[in-house]
Amino acid sequence: MFDLRVLNKEEIKEVLNMNDVIKIVEEVYRLKAEGGTTVFPLIFHEFEPGAADMDIKSGWLKGYDIFGLKVVSWFGGNEKKGIPALIGIILVLDATTGTPIGILDGAHVTGMRTGASGAIGAKYLARSNSETLLMVGAGHIAAFEIAATLLLFPTVKNVMIHAPLHPEHADRLAASMPDILREEFGITVDRGVGFHAVRDLENAVKDSDIIITATPSKTPLIKKEWVKPGTHFSCVGADMSGKEEIDPEIFADARVFTDDTEQCINVGEIEIPVARGILKREAIAGEIGDVVTGRVTGRESDGQITVFDATGTALLDLLTGKLALDAAAEKEIGTIVKL
Amino acid sequence: MFDLRVLNKEEIKEVLNMNDVIKIVEEVYRLKAEGGTTVFPLIFHEFEPGAADMDIKSGWLKGYDIFGLKVVSWFGGNEKKGIPALIGIILVLDATTGTPIGILDGAHVTGMRTGASGAIGAKYLARSNSETLLMVGAGHIAAFEIAATLLLFPTVKNVMIHAPLHPEHADRLAASMPDILREEFGITVDRGVGFHAVRDLENAVKDSDIIITATPSKTPLIKKEWVKPGTHFSCVGADMSGKEEIDPEIFADARVFTDDTEQCINVGEIEIPVARGILKREAIAGEIGDVVTGRVTGRESDGQITVFDATGTALLDLLTGKLALDAAAEKEIGTIVKL
Repeated sequence: MFDLRVLNKEEIKEVLNMNDVIKIVEEVYRLKAEGGTTVFPLIFHEFEPGAADMDIKSGWLKGYDIFGLKVVSWFGGNEKKGIPALIGIILVLDATTGTPIGILDGAHVTGMRTGASGAIGAKYLARSNSETLLMVGAGHIAAFEIAATLLLFPTVKNVMIHAPLHPEHADRLAASMPDILREEFGITVDRGVGFHAVRDLENAVKDSDIIITATPSKTPLIKKEWVKPGTHFSCVGADMSGKEEIDPEIFADARVFTDDTEQCINVGEIEIPVARGILKREAIAGEIGDVVTGRVTGRESDGQITVFDATGTALLDLLTGKLALDAAAEKEIGTIVKL
Repeated sequence: MFDLRVLNKEEIKEVLNMNDVIKIVEEVYRLKAEGGTTVFPLIFHEFEPGAADMDIKSGWLKGYDIFGLKVVSWFGGNEKKGIPALIGIILVLDATTGTPIGILDGAHVTGMRTGASGAIGAKYLARSNSETLLMVGAGHIAAFEIAATLLLFPTVKNVMIHAPLHPEHADRLAASMPDILREEFGITVDRGVGFHAVRDLENAVKDSDIIITATPSKTPLIKKEWVKPGTHFSCVGADMSGKEEIDPEIFADARVFTDDTEQCINVGEIEIPVARGILKREAIAGEIGDVVTGRVTGRESDGQITVFDATGTALLDLLTGKLALDAAAEKEIGTIVKL
């Protein structure tokens, strides 16, 4: 029998901080660029089209000797029953013996690694003097994106939040963001950053240096003509075929990076621009790991529009999960079960 | 957060008995034949060819409102380290809300459901007056096959065990089988069944009514000319491309059933006979569930040779796992963790 550590959301919160997760996510991108990882095929099943589905993402991080999976289910009708719609479980195993190492709640790990991803896209592609962040979407992921971006951009002074379907969610998030940063992330922003809910998306886009999109949208929310030169987009919402957040025409002359080019072409923000021929496959500048390792130049000029399409892989969940498990072992946090 | 029950091998042994598992496995075959199940694509990865691999099997049992997966790793070098080579974990989730129900050690569940599978193949296809069982293979699975077959065939008086690579394993298993039945399965065989290790496979085959093969062989062990009319084979060993236990020519005039025809053609005992054209796809009589539901006749005459090719699906692990979780909940066995 094996000792297996089980970490729930509260325990994961105690042991993970965003600065460390940002380092780990960068490390995953670097490893992937260097060929030290394998992403296994995605399993996806709809129990009821548009209402209930599940997916299993899995992979292997050779350099860290771990493999494993994340199973995520989404049941739209859950909220009526007082159950979260999105539920995830991560299983981390030792790739030298096949023994299980730990089981983690997937929701907080997903939030942390996705927040880090969007911000890392900005770190490598946005202008370093960026002052204005526009967060499109005010759901579960939004606070993670804002927290990670504020950590990486001390220059950011103004955070705008736009919620396309439920403007009141943006109001609520903007009002509580300083508390969330302090209480959920242990971050105190003492440089006078303003958080504002915005209803007029067009004017917000025109004023933004960095735009992060994290919505379940299936039609473009942001028009090309609104985008000022030099804007950076991190698109993290599109992770399933048909999802789309920004005008496909933006891709006609943007410098575009992905987290996993094959997966992004299949299910990411670039799915539709590639399918329509607006973005040629060979015009994709590379994966973000190529920029992290310095093999490909990120932004080439201050006026260039850059896009990072982040669809997410199990690799991010597994290494972030391992980071949490190691920290929890040191602090003796979590439940040990004998399996 | 959710209450999740975790069951290790000892706890699973306390709550599962072979008679109930046989019923559950038959129920899975029936459901599958009636279209109440979905098997998701198999994920398979070799870390080191021939030395270390892992697979993820997953699926959905609509009628029982559960879905989930089993991850199994095999690391050949583990035994030197004092770790089992084969390690499995089963995760059962609720298919109406996506919430996790339980996590189970996979080894005992796999043994129980695989033992039940081989015996159910014999129940529906072997002659009902069968007296002699030949078990080919004396590894982890053998005792499960023997236990389940003895439960279903009160007529069986003679059990021969052959271990192709390590004859001493067959000696050991034959000597300890009465104790194993009593201690591991709670079965007392008081009808004078004899357990014999046999080295001469040819003569053993000639004497057998039911032959169950559960080896990792990649070349046929049993020749066609040894097989007497009326013999039944349950082949449970071949579950990966290239594995093969019996002469492909046996399939030329046998009545053949599968547990999942697509999967068997890809990775089962029929892979090679189908690839070579010895067994035509359309000559496969059906899936075992078709016999369980009465839609297809099993054995057609006393002299016919019958084969059941059982590759195993996650459906078996999930419903057997659910049976164990329900029994454990009733008896308050296992560890509850909050995830």
